[in-house]
Amino acid sequence: MTRDEKPKARLPRGFVDRHPADIKLADEMIGKIKQVYELYGFEPVETPLIEYTDALGKFLPDQDRPNEGVFSLQDDDEQWMSLRYDLTAPLARYVAENFDKLPKPYRSYRVGYVFRNEKPGPGRFRQFMQFDADTVGAPTVAADAEICMMAADCMEALGIPRGQYVIRVNNRKVLDGIMEAIGIGGDDNAGRRLTVLRAIDKLDKFGPEGVRLLLGAGRMDESGDFTKGAGLDEAQIAVVIGFVGAGSVDADLTIANLRPLVAASATGTAGVDELAEIAALVRAAGYDDGRVRIDPSVVRGLEYYTGPVYEAELLFEAVNDDGQKVRFGSVGGGGRYDGLVSRFRGEPVPATGFSVGVSRLAAALKALGKVEAGAGYGPVVVLVMDKAEAARYQAMVARLRAAGIRAEMYLGGSGMKAQVKYADKRNSPCVIIQGSNERDAGEVQIKDLIEGARLAKGISSNEEWRESRPAQITVPEADLVAAVRDILARYPGA
Amino acid sequence: MTRDEKPKARLPRGFVDRHPADIKLADEMIGKIKQVYELYGFEPVETPLIEYTDALGKFLPDQDRPNEGVFSLQDDDEQWMSLRYDLTAPLARYVAENFDKLPKPYRSYRVGYVFRNEKPGPGRFRQFMQFDADTVGAPTVAADAEICMMAADCMEALGIPRGQYVIRVNNRKVLDGIMEAIGIGGDDNAGRRLTVLRAIDKLDKFGPEGVRLLLGAGRMDESGDFTKGAGLDEAQIAVVIGFVGAGSVDADLTIANLRPLVAASATGTAGVDELAEIAALVRAAGYDDGRVRIDPSVVRGLEYYTGPVYEAELLFEAVNDDGQKVRFGSVGGGGRYDGLVSRFRGEPVPATGFSVGVSRLAAALKALGKVEAGAGYGPVVVLVMDKAEAARYQAMVARLRAAGIRAEMYLGGSGMKAQVKYADKRNSPCVIIQGSNERDAGEVQIKDLIEGARLAKGISSNEEWRESRPAQITVPEADLVAAVRDILARYPGA
Repeated sequence: MTRDEKPKARLPRGFVDRHPADIKLADEMIGKIKQVYELYGFEPVETPLIEYTDALGKFLPDQDRPNEGVFSLQDDDEQWMSLRYDLTAPLARYVAENFDKLPKPYRSYRVGYVFRNEKPGPGRFRQFMQFDADTVGAPTVAADAEICMMAADCMEALGIPRGQYVIRVNNRKVLDGIMEAIGIGGDDNAGRRLTVLRAIDKLDKFGPEGVRLLLGAGRMDESGDFTKGAGLDEAQIAVVIGFVGAGSVDADLTIANLRPLVAASATGTAGVDELAEIAALVRAAGYDDGRVRIDPSVVRGLEYYTGPVYEAELLFEAVNDDGQKVRFGSVGGGGRYDGLVSRFRGEPVPATGFSVGVSRLAAALKALGKVEAGAGYGPVVVLVMDKAEAARYQAMVARLRAAGIRAEMYLGGSGMKAQVKYADKRNSPCVIIQGSNERDAGEVQIKDLIEGARLAKGISSNEEWRESRPAQITVPEADLVAAVRDILARYPGA
Repeated sequence: MTRDEKPKARLPRGFVDRHPADIKLADEMIGKIKQVYELYGFEPVETPLIEYTDALGKFLPDQDRPNEGVFSLQDDDEQWMSLRYDLTAPLARYVAENFDKLPKPYRSYRVGYVFRNEKPGPGRFRQFMQFDADTVGAPTVAADAEICMMAADCMEALGIPRGQYVIRVNNRKVLDGIMEAIGIGGDDNAGRRLTVLRAIDKLDKFGPEGVRLLLGAGRMDESGDFTKGAGLDEAQIAVVIGFVGAGSVDADLTIANLRPLVAASATGTAGVDELAEIAALVRAAGYDDGRVRIDPSVVRGLEYYTGPVYEAELLFEAVNDDGQKVRFGSVGGGGRYDGLVSRFRGEPVPATGFSVGVSRLAAALKALGKVEAGAGYGPVVVLVMDKAEAARYQAMVARLRAAGIRAEMYLGGSGMKAQVKYADKRNSPCVIIQGSNERDAGEVQIKDLIEGARLAKGISSNEEWRESRPAQITVPEADLVAAVRDILARYPGA
């Protein structure tokens, strides 16, 4: 292969590698969320990452873009397949396919990667992890209320203090009632209503002024890209903006505010009734203390929602990697999607579910200081002083491992100094050294690298350092395991 | 949507859903393998599921097929991307991209799904899970020997008894020496050598006669598909078949058998020397007791191997779902791939690694009876006797959950009988019942479903069943948690 043909080692835009500390954090988060979901009676299921495109349907907020937000490819038999863009559409396919076998209501949870074929940006990736829980076959809003409370429990299980998060609840039916009130009800206006919903959904991002533009003629962003608006007139915009701001910390007051706004719409009134029922269930369980709140500004961008929609929002600000203060906002959400399973079955199948954005929430936990930096200590390293004695060093490693101590023999081609540097880079607590002198004496040296580094900081000259040989002990080879164990006991987690 | 437009709920060929018992099994396996890998000093890393096609390279055994075995799609900027087909090629990209930051040797493990765009078959899926460990930057075969021993430790950690598995080791250099011996050395014959290797690799599948055909003119399978052979003559075939059978349980004898076969080839002799070194290291650590064995019939189909290759093989037979006796064979393997990282860097970067086929191994563990059937007990179900009292039932559920007991309120729309049937289907240990009588008395009924089912088996008439009310108790509502706990204590794991 010539130099010119050498491929470049790089990832496609919007994809990232995950390192030990990130993996550990995500694993811990998944374990904690799983515990909450199981406590609520949900059981796991897993679907593959690829589905037939028609089975997934087109429900993404960005479906109007050229490639419709999904990664798609054609199978040998010409059928189109796509990488899943969320965990809800595949669940609908799964439930429809296995309908008669499943208990109903069917409560399941799923964790895994989803893919969006979108323009990546800061904190916006084309592959990210979601952790969902869904109840299929539960017709009443008791199921929605339960999932909202479960979402709150998840936040607390992850260490987010009460008061620093809120689960906000709204209802698509109420939103539909508002649409009727401003004269854009009916099948013909479905597309326009979706544009209005997506405009409201941008409140966090663009503020009320930005939403006004998106409800009206449209909005141009900093890069000059123009997003066409919903084309509402001033009076219509005023109603929508008024509705969005109708929320209060008092659920009864919020509901009282909403009733007159949708009084003329049967759908809107039914939606307000459902919100009132959710509020009552939440109050009975004591989650009305700020954990779960009725809030008309919640929309959720996905097209498939049909009733209650909810969003888990973090309320604190944090400083990001670039030193900027940022509010974390939404780390998950969901809602009722009564039409998604019935797409396949031609009969009504009510369903509601919640999705945690694991990757986003991980970033928030880091910012909240809930996560220790780094990935902990590395293994004990047995240095190779004499290559001909590899089998001897290997046997030492085997003894340490048999005692449950993470250990390895140095396997590189470098000398003593590079070997210690390697162990430092791994954050190893100690290294084992046996040169010919020690071997003849039946001994090993154990060098405590952490104590060594600490002492080194207080010692000015290299001479002193070499003479004092800090944190280094010599023990009979037979005592290797016990002596290493003593050193590891100094460092919890090693 | 009209009836005709209704999409069909089905998965593309070769993809499957995983159910609770499978997920639990895979999670447990991953936990055990992870422990072994970490004990050996490996640390986790994770790469995305999508890479640039050119970064992955084309190293699949089936690369001569039309779509070359991978799922590929084009990005917006026309660059081709592929779903990873193994975890080794992405690791090579990762190491090359982060070379200066990483400790060297770099020991890492990775678990995740890989994809093959191949014809699916029984036990052969287009998405499956691998769990790899690799050492990059380790030039000597001490690294290979270590990984073989680690593979053996993995098998035992998973509960596969010693004697029921073997890690078989060979060396591509020895195979190359054989090629030279039969006159197909040199760059011009690279493609032909690969065909020979892949023929040998089919020994398990097609037996010696099938391999003979693949080494010669070619082989027609049952379906009439013809695979072109390597075109060797009878004398050449005899050498290859003789070589493949040169193994013995005694490593020294195997090595003595191999030496004369490759005596004329410097590469072949170097390969035999490496095998002798591995055998010595394995013997020093006591793994020569049948756990790790030198075996010239091991090839591994992937093109990128350059030195030692190894394979974890299960030796027992088991009855599969269709009642057939099957030998499990290979559940993992790997080898040295010194060229894979240097593809990107233009400098030699030695590396070796092992991949466990998690999905395949899970099937083997099930067959070995190492796995309990089913997914354990379901949650406690609070039945809904009176829909108006939902908040009251919800509060009971909240009390149970607060005590750490998995519980749920029935959320469906069905009556009493269907509710109990639902709890049975979930394998719930008990249900909680509170009708108006119990409510007035401040009591709840708890029905032990498992004891109930047991008693029901011994009772012939329905009358008797109803009268005896087996395994059903009534307790004050205040004692709900304690009474449920008593029942759960009867069923370990509930």
